[in-house]
Amino acid sequence: MSNRPYNFYPGPAILPLEVIQQVQNELLNIGGTGLSVMEVSHRGKAYDEIHKTAMADLKEVLHIPDNYHILFLQGGASLQFAMVPMNFLRKGTADYVNTGSWAKKAIKEAKLFGNVNIAGSSEDKNFSYIPRELNLSPDADYLHITSNETISGIRWNRFPETGYVPMISDMSSEICSRKIDVARFGLIYAGAQKNLGPAGVTAVIIRDDLAEKCPDDVTTMLNYKTHVEKESLFNTPPCFAIYVVGLVLKWIKKQGGLEALEEVNNEKARLIYEVIDGGDFYRGTADPADRSIMNITFRLPSEELEAEFVRQSEKAGFVGLKGHRSVGGLRASIYNAFPLEGVKELVKFMKKFEQENS
Amino acid sequence: MSNRPYNFYPGPAILPLEVIQQVQNELLNIGGTGLSVMEVSHRGKAYDEIHKTAMADLKEVLHIPDNYHILFLQGGASLQFAMVPMNFLRKGTADYVNTGSWAKKAIKEAKLFGNVNIAGSSEDKNFSYIPRELNLSPDADYLHITSNETISGIRWNRFPETGYVPMISDMSSEICSRKIDVARFGLIYAGAQKNLGPAGVTAVIIRDDLAEKCPDDVTTMLNYKTHVEKESLFNTPPCFAIYVVGLVLKWIKKQGGLEALEEVNNEKARLIYEVIDGGDFYRGTADPADRSIMNITFRLPSEELEAEFVRQSEKAGFVGLKGHRSVGGLRASIYNAFPLEGVKELVKFMKKFEQENS
Repeated sequence: MSNRPYNFYPGPAILPLEVIQQVQNELLNIGGTGLSVMEVSHRGKAYDEIHKTAMADLKEVLHIPDNYHILFLQGGASLQFAMVPMNFLRKGTADYVNTGSWAKKAIKEAKLFGNVNIAGSSEDKNFSYIPRELNLSPDADYLHITSNETISGIRWNRFPETGYVPMISDMSSEICSRKIDVARFGLIYAGAQKNLGPAGVTAVIIRDDLAEKCPDDVTTMLNYKTHVEKESLFNTPPCFAIYVVGLVLKWIKKQGGLEALEEVNNEKARLIYEVIDGGDFYRGTADPADRSIMNITFRLPSEELEAEFVRQSEKAGFVGLKGHRSVGGLRASIYNAFPLEGVKELVKFMKKFEQENS
Repeated sequence: MSNRPYNFYPGPAILPLEVIQQVQNELLNIGGTGLSVMEVSHRGKAYDEIHKTAMADLKEVLHIPDNYHILFLQGGASLQFAMVPMNFLRKGTADYVNTGSWAKKAIKEAKLFGNVNIAGSSEDKNFSYIPRELNLSPDADYLHITSNETISGIRWNRFPETGYVPMISDMSSEICSRKIDVARFGLIYAGAQKNLGPAGVTAVIIRDDLAEKCPDDVTTMLNYKTHVEKESLFNTPPCFAIYVVGLVLKWIKKQGGLEALEEVNNEKARLIYEVIDGGDFYRGTADPADRSIMNITFRLPSEELEAEFVRQSEKAGFVGLKGHRSVGGLRASIYNAFPLEGVKELVKFMKKFEQENS
């Protein structure tokens, strides 16, 4: 696999090589059926086992308490931006924290359904930090946060206390990258295409009392209750994507679970931030206290040098280091499947580039 | 591939073997990137080409006029049941024809959004026919039909005249199985997992004037206008599923397009119906005038014999012949990718079973 470049794409993103190889090996014959996993009935034995095992493994990996259900839905986080308020913002007010592009999109959709209180915002400083002081509504229907902002590269290290108000979080770009106390949340959602698998499936973790509260007048497919009751088999699920998520979860378990992965992830991030902080050439854009360990954002002395960095990095076998088109700069997305060895190569490259261009 | 059973599953369903093999062959390296198609950015060159080519090929295969857009969405036909009325049933009335389980589900969702007029129904005879006389509302927002009912095995052979009223059709279980005059429709949708590819993507064909009419207060992801404007790249699409759809479309072109496929499909269906009509042992459940060429439903003299038929057919290397759990009986789903040779084997098996059990 010497031709495999180091993949820093923000999502869809790198998958463990052994997962892709397993998909390849069994693509013509899943579970002894003689058929492809893409061809078997979602009501049949072979797929049923895949479906249930993936749910059980996500539960195990994230230590999800028994009063939660796991759903595999379609539409990405973008559809969750609508489903959350459609089900839970019915008459009152919902609190949202505006920490970046993704939080903003969630806020935009929520406003179509009810009253939104912006409980905090870091827009004043280009979303470079997590707001410390929140103006929470005591009787909010819920508080919505984005636990990791892919574009600006910040994350919540400590989650707010919300008392009886359910906390809901978009965890798309960091799910399974660190230990999380799921019991602190009413609902967690995450598009799979960063840390869990290919694009096309969204994991939702929902506390049972919230699922029970979903109103009957919400259309069937957008009602969480439907999918809780039918165990995400109300209609044909995105079987292939769920199958790959299942393989990724097995891979996570094999790595030693989140406990082991979090340690490696911290080390990977530390190595890159160390270069950024080691001189004046690179400049991290996120407040050090709120830095993401998944998406590392930085600038160079000039836009010309940034363009040159991207050009040379591609030649050196790194892809996806260009920052999001809305903010510019550089970004290294180093999800779970990104190897420590690749980070070490990037660090070498960064040091060399600094030497040659300062 | 001698171990590959004949796959009669109603969906997810059989895919062309050469398509699965191509996926397998290039799974570690798409378009010379050195990465899997599951790992590359949806904003990058490799995926962009896949995305656009799949759209262009669907347009070519179905002879779609220039005033239509093709969308690749998530959520299956089940989400379209809600999206259609959410966007188009705003104040007035929509006409629906109740031809079976799928039509009924579409009707149920539409009622959450507005007035539904049941313009025709074949529920009186277990959905065994397409209603001839329709009670259409002259100023309906649209007419909704289900062009092929997977469960009862009937299809519309001639479509109703609706004048200025847009006709909208769920074509999930028959898209690309025959030539269709797309210009007769305002909107066509189809879950991919029968004739187009794996589960997880839904093809939508929408006339431009309808897309322009989508109201701004419909949430972004459920508003057709969003996906028309962003060419189904508003958020991360189900890249892998769209990639496989693209390969299936290339395969369709290689077969000679719908013109050639329709002929083979007609012949495949004719061979099975011939056995059904050839004696008293098998009994077709659909009105001969409205028989589907994709889903062939039939009964045997007793439920015991039906169970025995399923048992023996599985031993003989056929899977998926059991009828839908809601109606019982037998069903042979013979989508585009199902080979003529497999139909001939089924016919042999049916004749032998008849001889041994009459």
